[in-house]
Amino acid sequence: MNQYTSEKLQGIHGTSVKRAFYIGRFQPLHNGHVMVINMLCEQADEIIIGIGSAQKSHTQVDPFTAGERVLMITRTLVASNIHKMWYVIPIEDLQRNALWVSHIRAMTPPFDQVYSSNALVTRLFFEAGVDICSPIMHERDSLSGTEIRRRICTNGSWEDLVPYEVVQVIKEVDGVSRLQDLMLDDVDISERANMHHS
Amino acid sequence: MNQYTSEKLQGIHGTSVKRAFYIGRFQPLHNGHVMVINMLCEQADEIIIGIGSAQKSHTQVDPFTAGERVLMITRTLVASNIHKMWYVIPIEDLQRNALWVSHIRAMTPPFDQVYSSNALVTRLFFEAGVDICSPIMHERDSLSGTEIRRRICTNGSWEDLVPYEVVQVIKEVDGVSRLQDLMLDDVDISERANMHHS
Amino acid sequence: MNQYTSEKLQGIHGTSVKRAFYIGRFQPLHNGHVMVINMLCEQADEIIIGIGSAQKSHTQVDPFTAGERVLMITRTLVASNIHKMWYVIPIEDLQRNALWVSHIRAMTPPFDQVYSSNALVTRLFFEAGVDICSPIMHERDSLSGTEIRRRICTNGSWEDLVPYEVVQVIKEVDGVSRLQDLMLDDVDISERANMHHS
Amino acid sequence: MNQYTSEKLQGIHGTSVKRAFYIGRFQPLHNGHVMVINMLCEQADEIIIGIGSAQKSHTQVDPFTAGERVLMITRTLVASNIHKMWYVIPIEDLQRNALWVSHIRAMTPPFDQVYSSNALVTRLFFEAGVDICSPIMHERDSLSGTEIRRRICTNGSWEDLVPYEVVQVIKEVDGVSRLQDLMLDDVDISERANMHHS
Amino acid sequence: MNQYTSEKLQGIHGTSVKRAFYIGRFQPLHNGHVMVINMLCEQADEIIIGIGSAQKSHTQVDPFTAGERVLMITRTLVASNIHKMWYVIPIEDLQRNALWVSHIRAMTPPFDQVYSSNALVTRLFFEAGVDICSPIMHERDSLSGTEIRRRICTNGSWEDLVPYEVVQVIKEVDGVSRLQDLMLDDVDISERANMHHS
Amino acid sequence: MNQYTSEKLQGIHGTSVKRAFYIGRFQPLHNGHVMVINMLCEQADEIIIGIGSAQKSHTQVDPFTAGERVLMITRTLVASNIHKMWYVIPIEDLQRNALWVSHIRAMTPPFDQVYSSNALVTRLFFEAGVDICSPIMHERDSLSGTEIRRRICTNGSWEDLVPYEVVQVIKEVDGVSRLQDLMLDDVDISERANMHHS
Repeated sequence: MNQYTSEKLQGIHGTSVKRAFYIGRFQPLHNGHVMVINMLCEQADEIIIGIGSAQKSHTQVDPFTAGERVLMITRTLVASNIHKMWYVIPIEDLQRNALWVSHIRAMTPPFDQVYSSNALVTRLFFEAGVDICSPIMHERDSLSGTEIRRRICTNGSWEDLVPYEVVQVIKEVDGVSRLQDLMLDDVDISERANMHHS
Repeated sequence: MNQYTSEKLQGIHGTSVKRAFYIGRFQPLHNGHVMVINMLCEQADEIIIGIGSAQKSHTQVDPFTAGERVLMITRTLVASNIHKMWYVIPIEDLQRNALWVSHIRAMTPPFDQVYSSNALVTRLFFEAGVDICSPIMHERDSLSGTEIRRRICTNGSWEDLVPYEVVQVIKEVDGVSRLQDLMLDDVDISERANMHHS
Repeated sequence: MNQYTSEKLQGIHGTSVKRAFYIGRFQPLHNGHVMVINMLCEQADEIIIGIGSAQKSHTQVDPFTAGERVLMITRTLVASNIHKMWYVIPIEDLQRNALWVSHIRAMTPPFDQVYSSNALVTRLFFEAGVDICSPIMHERDSLSGTEIRRRICTNGSWEDLVPYEVVQVIKEVDGVSRLQDLMLDDVDISERANMHHS
Repeated sequence: MNQYTSEKLQGIHGTSVKRAFYIGRFQPLHNGHVMVINMLCEQADEIIIGIGSAQKSHTQVDPFTAGERVLMITRTLVASNIHKMWYVIPIEDLQRNALWVSHIRAMTPPFDQVYSSNALVTRLFFEAGVDICSPIMHERDSLSGTEIRRRICTNGSWEDLVPYEVVQVIKEVDGVSRLQDLMLDDVDISERANMHHS
Repeated sequence: MNQYTSEKLQGIHGTSVKRAFYIGRFQPLHNGHVMVINMLCEQADEIIIGIGSAQKSHTQVDPFTAGERVLMITRTLVASNIHKMWYVIPIEDLQRNALWVSHIRAMTPPFDQVYSSNALVTRLFFEAGVDICSPIMHERDSLSGTEIRRRICTNGSWEDLVPYEVVQVIKEVDGVSRLQDLMLDDVDISERANMHHS
Repeated sequence: MNQYTSEKLQGIHGTSVKRAFYIGRFQPLHNGHVMVINMLCEQADEIIIGIGSAQKSHTQVDPFTAGERVLMITRTLVASNIHKMWYVIPIEDLQRNALWVSHIRAMTPPFDQVYSSNALVTRLFFEAGVDICSPIMHERDSLSGTEIRRRICTNGSWEDLVPYEVVQVIKEVDGVSRLQDLMLDDVDISERANMHHS
């Protein structure tokens, strides 16, 4: 028994495979991302998920490592009954916008279609002559990485905004305490340390 | 129907998942690599395949892009009836050996076991306290990237040394002519150009 | 007939050539820059124009590529009847201030005089023992890159603040729509996409 | 006569040397840092002082070069009657938090204990399994680099907040005028230049 | 009187400007390069000369700085009665072949035609769908940078292999002694120093 | 009691301190280096020892980390009864020769004199107008890092070529086995692994 069904093999071996590319930082992967991925699956034979700013981690804006994000995405895809071939690829920043599309192309299998709502990504692929779809974003107020990280930091309610598998990974890597620690300032740390020692 | 069988889900969701890491440049993936991957599958719940020197391409030693190598490996795994969960992750060089193990750990899901026959990789993981297996290499004379690239350049017989899917990918990306072009020197190019123009 | 008149050749071949260096980001070149360049031409035999942050492009602050800026400056110099030899040289950022003067010296022909109103540039050349002139800035409210980019983004009136040749180049490279696209946020893009699709 | 007393030699040669690591940017070294260093000396056999962001200088936030900071720290240690072996080591930024602890370890002699009140440093060493002490910060309002640089820029009173040797070094490297120059904006520079020329 | 004749202005302002791109390291510029440049001038309206490995200098293979090479090329073009608009642009290495064509495009005005006899350059532009001409190389044995640098190091006869202006620049920057110094090994240097001191 | 005698304090506080700079890779520190350091101590008030290629380690040519080399040098200086103030400073490579002298100056306290027998270092400081001494190298055949590393790899006799403290450090960091492991090729590793498993 094989993890790829005949339906998928058709995709991977066919000469007319239609691949879609979707990039995000996934800090963390949330239900808004999953909706986009589901939409991609309906429109393409194979999907490529690029994890942007792969070299970043342990900041308030980019708390999770690339490897942790690979785990979040893969587990969620597995649990989501996705019937398409997928590729999950960490991509380091290049800091040179004019070269970014070539960088993406070098790091991924060939693709025909890009899904993004980011202004820079959209413009760069447009100038490169690539077809872009900007998916409608649902519930932008809550379904955003910024809001989810804010809730994690303030012990708010965040678990319902992300897939169950992401909750699991964040717990396994001690992600809640990591985010809360990263937002402390120096005085907090001294005081906390002081309490421990007194 | 899902690409991950219940056997695999057990791995990905279990708390005691045993992951093995295997890194290579895969320029290109060959049958020796596949033997090692098969061995890993027997000994671990999930396997992580790191594609080293991901930022390199279009040289005689590193002809293929990371994306092309992702394609080679994924297609081969699909065709190989692998019964384990896998991750295929391009990893850029860091040029700082003392930080390399941390770099790998940041880019991948957690793992317990490393497979490598490379002296530097072996030493670095050893100093980091990680268990290493050095698989026995079969038919090192022919099953090596160096030998396979040499044969491609000289129109020798190389197709039997790599999986069928790799032959396909190399053909799709015009890899044979790329390798042969890269080995030309300036005089060759002028002469060839001269012939075309005369 | 030659593009360099005898007057200029005297400069380039003489042993006592006096070269002046002027650096800016030129995002885009505007009439304030041109006034400074004209002043340089009166005081030096040859002028070197360094294009700073050459590696940047496609951001709201640095929208144009180095090549586009080379084109803006060269066309404007040609149309300006400049009677001096000039060099237009893109210079990538180094991110190490203490090495910046050496970086500039390595990328340009030797020079004796620097023109700049930037605090950091002025201080760095001062510490390196180089003569600096800080030209009086005219009409700083309108003759600034920040103001011109703001007007381009908001469909304000900007064409009179830059040379005619710069208007041309910006139009040729679709610069107005690039700047306006880069300032969109995610919601704008989704809505715009939505309208297109409905 | 030797610069290391027998007491220190015991430290450096012993097999059970206990080394403590303390990192800061030291822009500049101030009395708060010195208090921490004194505390370290009471608790460890040898102390390692890491100078962070070593590649930075000539900005309002990071005005001094690594070499200037080495001089500040060394002169102060010498004048402070420190009875312990010390190492003063400039450390360049890596821009990859997940690799930062390995970077520190590669650049320094082995250590067992870390002193820091910085949230990121504390978290990173915690995840690496290293013991961390967060020293109580005294008089945070005045004993902070930010406040001291602000006072230098505005001709306020700052000399009492730093060791005497630091005042010396800042004067020798013309640090006050450097900081004040770096905070000028373009208009100031033009006006000042204008006054000089009129 | 202006440095650009009406003939050239036609090029720079026309909508159908045909630009040719030629890249080399020019260590140093020699008569073989000049022949290619002359050929370009016959076939294009404007020419772009890219100075590769711009960040390198002071090695036996790359002895001259980018600024020195800008000077060599510009002076030679001026003296050569070139009737076409030109751009001389230093280009730093990127170390990522798959991104190199985008890098070149970002640093230069748009071009339609590339001239190169280098295998890698030729292949990369071919894969990017750009027209390439490989000029016939004349007298490759003597008209090569390698041979000219060898002769400079060994006090051989090299002045006839490069334009007169290049001889001038090399002398002005003390280039002969630089190259000869760079090839000394440690023992030579000690002995030479010893002689000086004895 | 203080680690710096009054003799040294005179150096560190005086306005006319004469500092000498000596750079090497110290892979490892050997008796030839120590002879040069002793000579420096006779001729300068303070000495600065720069550890080049600080970011490198775990290769056959650069086996030891910067931190390990700091330890070798510091322990040896302590044991050598050096009566001068010293600074031991790891310096990362910059890969831009034209900026290297500025890089050194930014990372170190000010100095007036450079000691080096390296052709590139000597030339770069010469072009920067700095005084250079090229010390006579004694017993170059054996007192070279290359030879010492070769002997370590082949179980030759190397302990007499380096200070006693360096032998200690190399043993503490398991340096002999590190060097021997790094020189193994893939087949060796497989065979060795095979023996272990059989």
